[in-house]
Amino acid sequence: MSSTTAIAVPAWPAAGSPTSRTATTLGPGTESPAAVGNARTSSAGILAAPAATTVAGYLFTRLAEAGVISVFGVPGDYSLGLLDEIAARPDLAWVGMATEQGAGYAADSYARLRGLGALVTTFGVGELSAINAIAGAYAESAPVVHIVGTPAVSARGTGLTLHHNLPGNGFAHFAAMAAEVTAAQADLRADAAPGDEIDRVLRVALRTSRPVYLAIPADVATAPVPAPAGPLLAGREDHADPAVLAAFTRDVRHALGTAASASILVGHLAQRHRLTAQVAELAAAGDLPVTVLSMAKGTFPEADPRFAGLYAGAASAKRARLAVEDTDLLITVGVTLGDTVTGGGTHQLPTSRRIDLAPDSARIGSTAYPGVGLGQALAALTAAVRVSQLRAGTYLIGPAETPPAATAQADPAAPLTQQHLWAAIQEFLLPGDLVIADQGTAFYGAAGLTLPAGTTLIGQPLWASIGWALPAALGASLAAPDRRVVLITGDGALQPTAAEFGTLLAQGAAPVVIVLNNGGYAIERVIHHACAAYHHITAWDWCKLPALMAGGTPVTTVRAVTAGDLDAAFLAAARDEACPPVLIEAVLGWADAPPLLLDLARVLAARNSYATH
Amino acid sequence: MSSTTAIAVPAWPAAGSPTSRTATTLGPGTESPAAVGNARTSSAGILAAPAATTVAGYLFTRLAEAGVISVFGVPGDYSLGLLDEIAARPDLAWVGMATEQGAGYAADSYARLRGLGALVTTFGVGELSAINAIAGAYAESAPVVHIVGTPAVSARGTGLTLHHNLPGNGFAHFAAMAAEVTAAQADLRADAAPGDEIDRVLRVALRTSRPVYLAIPADVATAPVPAPAGPLLAGREDHADPAVLAAFTRDVRHALGTAASASILVGHLAQRHRLTAQVAELAAAGDLPVTVLSMAKGTFPEADPRFAGLYAGAASAKRARLAVEDTDLLITVGVTLGDTVTGGGTHQLPTSRRIDLAPDSARIGSTAYPGVGLGQALAALTAAVRVSQLRAGTYLIGPAETPPAATAQADPAAPLTQQHLWAAIQEFLLPGDLVIADQGTAFYGAAGLTLPAGTTLIGQPLWASIGWALPAALGASLAAPDRRVVLITGDGALQPTAAEFGTLLAQGAAPVVIVLNNGGYAIERVIHHACAAYHHITAWDWCKLPALMAGGTPVTTVRAVTAGDLDAAFLAAARDEACPPVLIEAVLGWADAPPLLLDLARVLAARNSYATH
Repeated sequence: MSSTTAIAVPAWPAAGSPTSRTATTLGPGTESPAAVGNARTSSAGILAAPAATTVAGYLFTRLAEAGVISVFGVPGDYSLGLLDEIAARPDLAWVGMATEQGAGYAADSYARLRGLGALVTTFGVGELSAINAIAGAYAESAPVVHIVGTPAVSARGTGLTLHHNLPGNGFAHFAAMAAEVTAAQADLRADAAPGDEIDRVLRVALRTSRPVYLAIPADVATAPVPAPAGPLLAGREDHADPAVLAAFTRDVRHALGTAASASILVGHLAQRHRLTAQVAELAAAGDLPVTVLSMAKGTFPEADPRFAGLYAGAASAKRARLAVEDTDLLITVGVTLGDTVTGGGTHQLPTSRRIDLAPDSARIGSTAYPGVGLGQALAALTAAVRVSQLRAGTYLIGPAETPPAATAQADPAAPLTQQHLWAAIQEFLLPGDLVIADQGTAFYGAAGLTLPAGTTLIGQPLWASIGWALPAALGASLAAPDRRVVLITGDGALQPTAAEFGTLLAQGAAPVVIVLNNGGYAIERVIHHACAAYHHITAWDWCKLPALMAGGTPVTTVRAVTAGDLDAAFLAAARDEACPPVLIEAVLGWADAPPLLLDLARVLAARNSYATH
Repeated sequence: MSSTTAIAVPAWPAAGSPTSRTATTLGPGTESPAAVGNARTSSAGILAAPAATTVAGYLFTRLAEAGVISVFGVPGDYSLGLLDEIAARPDLAWVGMATEQGAGYAADSYARLRGLGALVTTFGVGELSAINAIAGAYAESAPVVHIVGTPAVSARGTGLTLHHNLPGNGFAHFAAMAAEVTAAQADLRADAAPGDEIDRVLRVALRTSRPVYLAIPADVATAPVPAPAGPLLAGREDHADPAVLAAFTRDVRHALGTAASASILVGHLAQRHRLTAQVAELAAAGDLPVTVLSMAKGTFPEADPRFAGLYAGAASAKRARLAVEDTDLLITVGVTLGDTVTGGGTHQLPTSRRIDLAPDSARIGSTAYPGVGLGQALAALTAAVRVSQLRAGTYLIGPAETPPAATAQADPAAPLTQQHLWAAIQEFLLPGDLVIADQGTAFYGAAGLTLPAGTTLIGQPLWASIGWALPAALGASLAAPDRRVVLITGDGALQPTAAEFGTLLAQGAAPVVIVLNNGGYAIERVIHHACAAYHHITAWDWCKLPALMAGGTPVTTVRAVTAGDLDAAFLAAARDEACPPVLIEAVLGWADAPPLLLDLARVLAARNSYATH
């Protein structure tokens, strides 16, 4: 059994602790260095002649300027010139991964926490192994720079088929594929302003919070080029036409002036565009209730009295539903209405009395204000709320949901259940934790938690690629080395990227890893044909993972079959001041699932037109 | 030390053994069922009204007709209707993998051995995780059917972003990406002749030996459709214009009539188009020397007196170079001149006195004969050779290369070397073995072996995606269950797909797995900066792999540090009649590499324009 006393004495550095190992922690709502541009000079106009560098030198100078320290990837012969440059720099660290997909996932979570992430892969085999991760970064808005070392320009056009290419002389197949899932692309040439091209592409990544693609031939990477002559970003870019912004400001005041009540629904794009502090400011200005989609969970303080809970359509608790669906005016901030975060599309948002703020445009009811950015819109809205008569008052109906039953109430000898698991995790969490949850029971269980102050939940419910979380835990560990990482993943989700457990330990990370072992793909079981054999996976003995790949790093392993086993494991993990990595295999019933997942699965099954079983 | 006596008593079923477990073995040169079309009726015109089925039923009926028994993949909610159909059929088996990339690699080797392979993945996350494997199948000509379960048509266009998609309502991003690396594509609709579309796409796969892409929405998979009304293929398709074929036949006779000597260089496309028996017939007709590229190694019997060895450009042995470069007339059959199979493009083929046979066209010197297929061209050429005066005679200069030193000559206590390793593997191989070698030291070592009769080497040197070989060993095991599988892979190559070791054992395969552990990417080391840290990988204790994922299957594990360790391990493996899976970790020096790889690496380094170190 666990003791609540242990929780009061954090054995791990809390969020915002100044004892950073190698990097400054950037929590949600903190401006990233990328956003302010810490270049060496404040004005490009008065510079001396720029020093010479190489294309690779130029690129990595820019990445370091934007706050990147760790660069992920797998080497290949076309990319070794790029890796030479990383190896030579004191300000960057190469993180060699077991797989390119793992590198992409790590760069994704790194980008979410630090404002930019990067990976280097080789032409063809490498880049295509990472492309699912890049597509995921696009879907979930993570600014990842995918750098691909390609065959030397001087080696092309000879008629010889080069390795990692399709037979023949075409070199554009993979770049064309990348263009489907990235926001900007460039294929650099030494004589075509490669520095300008790098800047153009990186600026798109920073402005849109989407992945971008840079192909660099082997002989271009080492080609000479002038060093950067000014900062990458001169400051935050404002795009709105002043007249449009003025109209928005006027119409917002009118909308607020005629509303009897208002509330805020927060999506993940507020965090991606580093505006969570501004959302909190807006809520405080009007004392407005705030709900979050699961993709934004943890970006608004859950202990704040204005926090009205998680909104997930029909799967929401009553308090959150009332705040969203019964308000007189709903303000949505950076939301993407995806099926897996709206209870399968069962959301009921008011259509006419709504203000929608997207990264590059705003809308009031049916009127669009193109070019009004999220930051500008929040500022205008907050000013308008301050002079309005709005107060939340009665719209926070009833108390918050009862927290999960304390673990002390469970019979220690009883088989472990999802209910007990999540109650125990709830008790185990500390302020400042980074909780990484893979798609499936892990994410939907985590979305139902009440997060302590400063605790961040990182998941991927929209792209929903199983296996994402373990490499994402590595990216998070390197992006915020002074925060405790709690990785929650499933057995089916962990197998695809389990190889990166070795990378995680080799990089010095000390996470708490909780593997939910229910013998297969539980999220698929609850959608269709629960007993079908295709839901099963090959059984692994998870506690043997460190023996294979920990390379001597001590790892505490626990196989928790009963409630008592799990409580004891958490108690030991919380108490151990040496902070070794911990791997807990939580053995769960194959048909057991968190309630949020069961609600979602019913809707998804119907949408796939499968017969009910 | 090993004993040669043990080799004489095969402990494993040899090639062509009739004791097949679940499938008929199809070695190179055997006609696959796909090529002859074993449909229920011989003529579509006189059929009774076809029975009703579903789109999924139609597709899997066709795949079974083409010789597919095992279908690889990972489930996802959009593809469960497809998996229901597989589960219901007695003629197909679902092989659930840990990763989609593993499924793609397994389908690739399965397709090479059986004439067609298939995998089922889910929309977005699943298909993109497999797309590197599909591109590899394209590059190396493996006819893989990539079946993707996509969101129901009825669920689209609602404005809701669906999971596994990019935000918004576009559903064509991933199909566009697939079109870059597949030979035919279809996105099925219930009302748009889905059966005809399936047939069209499958015929392209069989005709071109390239991968194809089938997107099937969840509600289309279960939609009713008439069952197939005739065979998929009515017979081998001949495309040549009779006049062009006649001209080719005439010009071939002329070329042969004026040649003082001729020899044959065989590429992998002869095997992919099931024409290795015809190549052997051509060689016998003229008693012509035969060389092979490494991609075709094992497709011509190496004990045949006409076999002149492996041709790899400047890295070739003298005998092979003379046969290719000094012949009066060179006949190339289905070659792709890739850098990694020509010693880095150092091949010296005669340009004017050459006959080139490609799958769908032929060429004599500078004259092209479009549409003359490989089978037609081989038949015409063989007939012409029979009436010519050609005899190989003096062009087989000198004896075959000395085989590697016998393992008995090594000091058993000496550290294991690449030289001893390959000599020991040479002794260990049995007739009929399927040798699967991953890119790197494994493949270039294996390419230097002399293969026993009926032994096949399967590698992927052109696409060269590390990690391919372990899942490929699974595909090979299921495609040819009565042959012994010897998997040779590197430590850097095994980490990316090691998760499929569990799948391999769960499917009942009993391979001999040899892991060359040299602490990193040896192939990159020999190309550039041998000591660079980015060549290292996280060390794994390979003999612990079965403990993690064998699920109770007994596996013999050996860590071979000395020559004697390896010899003892091979001796035990060859002697053990119970045929358990064997995992041998061969510990090698980090700078040790087979000679073929060293020759190649020098050329690749220069082409990448890296400075020499």
